[in-house]
Amino acid sequence: MSITRPLGFRAAGLAAGIKADGRRDLALVVNDGPRDTAAAVFTSNRVQAAPVLWSRQAVADGRARAVVLNSGGANACTGPEGFADTHRTAEHLAGVLGVSAQDVLVCSTGLIGERLPMEPLLSGAGAAVDALDAGEQVDAAAAQAIMTTDTVPKTAEVVLPSGVVVGGIAKGAGMLAPQLATMLVVLTTDADVDAATAQEALAAATRTTFDRVDSDACMSTNDTVILLASGASGTAVDAAELGEAVRAVSADLARQLVADAEGASHDVHVVVRSASSEDAALAVAREIARSSLVKTAIFGNDPNWGRIVSAAGCVPEAVAPFDVTDLSVSVNGVEVCRGGGAHRDRSEVDMTPRETVIEVDLGAGAAEADIWTNDLTHAYVEENSAYSS
Amino acid sequence: MSITRPLGFRAAGLAAGIKADGRRDLALVVNDGPRDTAAAVFTSNRVQAAPVLWSRQAVADGRARAVVLNSGGANACTGPEGFADTHRTAEHLAGVLGVSAQDVLVCSTGLIGERLPMEPLLSGAGAAVDALDAGEQVDAAAAQAIMTTDTVPKTAEVVLPSGVVVGGIAKGAGMLAPQLATMLVVLTTDADVDAATAQEALAAATRTTFDRVDSDACMSTNDTVILLASGASGTAVDAAELGEAVRAVSADLARQLVADAEGASHDVHVVVRSASSEDAALAVAREIARSSLVKTAIFGNDPNWGRIVSAAGCVPEAVAPFDVTDLSVSVNGVEVCRGGGAHRDRSEVDMTPRETVIEVDLGAGAAEADIWTNDLTHAYVEENSAYSS
Repeated sequence: MSITRPLGFRAAGLAAGIKADGRRDLALVVNDGPRDTAAAVFTSNRVQAAPVLWSRQAVADGRARAVVLNSGGANACTGPEGFADTHRTAEHLAGVLGVSAQDVLVCSTGLIGERLPMEPLLSGAGAAVDALDAGEQVDAAAAQAIMTTDTVPKTAEVVLPSGVVVGGIAKGAGMLAPQLATMLVVLTTDADVDAATAQEALAAATRTTFDRVDSDACMSTNDTVILLASGASGTAVDAAELGEAVRAVSADLARQLVADAEGASHDVHVVVRSASSEDAALAVAREIARSSLVKTAIFGNDPNWGRIVSAAGCVPEAVAPFDVTDLSVSVNGVEVCRGGGAHRDRSEVDMTPRETVIEVDLGAGAAEADIWTNDLTHAYVEENSAYSS
Repeated sequence: MSITRPLGFRAAGLAAGIKADGRRDLALVVNDGPRDTAAAVFTSNRVQAAPVLWSRQAVADGRARAVVLNSGGANACTGPEGFADTHRTAEHLAGVLGVSAQDVLVCSTGLIGERLPMEPLLSGAGAAVDALDAGEQVDAAAAQAIMTTDTVPKTAEVVLPSGVVVGGIAKGAGMLAPQLATMLVVLTTDADVDAATAQEALAAATRTTFDRVDSDACMSTNDTVILLASGASGTAVDAAELGEAVRAVSADLARQLVADAEGASHDVHVVVRSASSEDAALAVAREIARSSLVKTAIFGNDPNWGRIVSAAGCVPEAVAPFDVTDLSVSVNGVEVCRGGGAHRDRSEVDMTPRETVIEVDLGAGAAEADIWTNDLTHAYVEENSAYSS
């Protein structure tokens, strides 16, 4: 289970006919309370889809009763008409649920630049209300309904010692880079918390989980992470306790996103240590994670540390002060570069595991940061060249 | 002809045995004067190969008599020993040529992190001195000797109305991004100019040519562009006249680099107009040129303007102020996006030509800038995963 495991939530996932192939394409999550606490973070891309524009203002009061999500179309770059479509979706669902439209958040994912088919979307939303339920089946159906190029649904949950539960579903397989990725995430909890606490917990969790996924350096127009809290457990938790549980669920889902990234054959964990600051470490990690030459080398099972060092050297000194002659690089535990030069032989590195760990020591301080990325493969090129998405 | 077409230059290119496969791997260019004017620009990667460290200080006085270039090894990340190898190469050639070691510039290209085989390199350098000549054959041999993954040698020349000639050779096919690309370029001219004029002309030309090539966003450790002026024409030219000729030769060579980029099936010209500043236009052009999703779409002959707009939206507003609803995008002359939304149908775009033109209008000013890049293809992945380079 995931989103309906916490008390106070129901969900549904069904095929509304938005996708041409008849797969599930519409999910609904409803918070039955007693609380209607909501928090959210959104893409920082300046091109923001209509549902992002809508949900951003709708959640500004820290309250929401429902989230409706569709795959099969991003409703981005669709102008005032696209925004009206989103508004109409919220109004329609609000009418059926007997709540305010301002308490209905909307998420969409799919091709940019095309209008959504409103007739199937609205009738599907109505059918989803009828299908609302709790349990493993609806959680799985909801997680499936938000998939685009994902090959598996992503769900996670954590139970706190107090009995409070945090659950979540996520989608995202490409255009996967912070802040944020082309991903939609809905987290639910039955903790008794206010909106400020929920927002603080969500923002902190996102910063070190979803914001550290950088599969292909491409930031989407639709990214949304929503946390709904029902308070149905009757148990109050503080920001730290909730934050840790939200972080754990987010980390779990983020790792699942990387594992299912388009065409990937390796999940790559880039860890940069001994940096002058966390931002410096992050800048170096991100530059390495975004290097096409590093990513193709990993696809070829080649621990090519020269490309890693060269990528690190592209980060301006003002951003990440370090001395090139202090750099060391380990790949899967073998220190192939020390003091900026060759060290142990690259043939010692076993590149066959799916998880590849690149550790870089800058010798410039005590801070560290990490990024999760993927290798660059034929399958990635195939998937993103053969189909419009 | 190219580098020996200007009066006062001789060159050679031969197989010294640095490359295992017996192809040409060593080039020598000698300036016989009367002037020994030299100018150069180097990679801005903080990881700088030994020959870059050497040549940077050797050219600081604005003078050089010779440039020796090898493929088959980058001599980068090789520590003090690697620097000693470069120094020894310059000393050796200086002895044979009867000049100061400080007047011998060195360039290397190939795999990072391995020492050069010094015995074949030094004996090859001696043989190159014996082979020095002028004419089409040596120009071609020199251009071939610096090739790595290049499939064709690159040469260019321009004759000014005054009779002054500028010629050049270049290599570079991957790790091809400013500033600069993994490229080595030697330009020669018989113009009678001083070092300051030569440096000014070279810097200006590079800024709008080699610095605008961004094939794969990966900046190398070895990039060097050198301009040698012999003064043998006896004709003085001013910085503007020389600058235009150097720019024309550089633009010609830069275009050849793009045309031979690893695995590319399209050469992509990204032009951003109506920007608030040239820097703003350049930032947007570079973000689009670096998007894996834009590049794979072009490989698939898909004029996916949503990915272009999404990439533009990733540039921070502080860097490039514009309103998303003012964006228009044309692909190969068809305006597929206007006012931030869909306009003409994407099916109207003919993506079959090798040259793809993406024009973006920001509606935010009068400045413009362009970047040349390539699509992201199976062949790029294959070339960079199957071989260590």
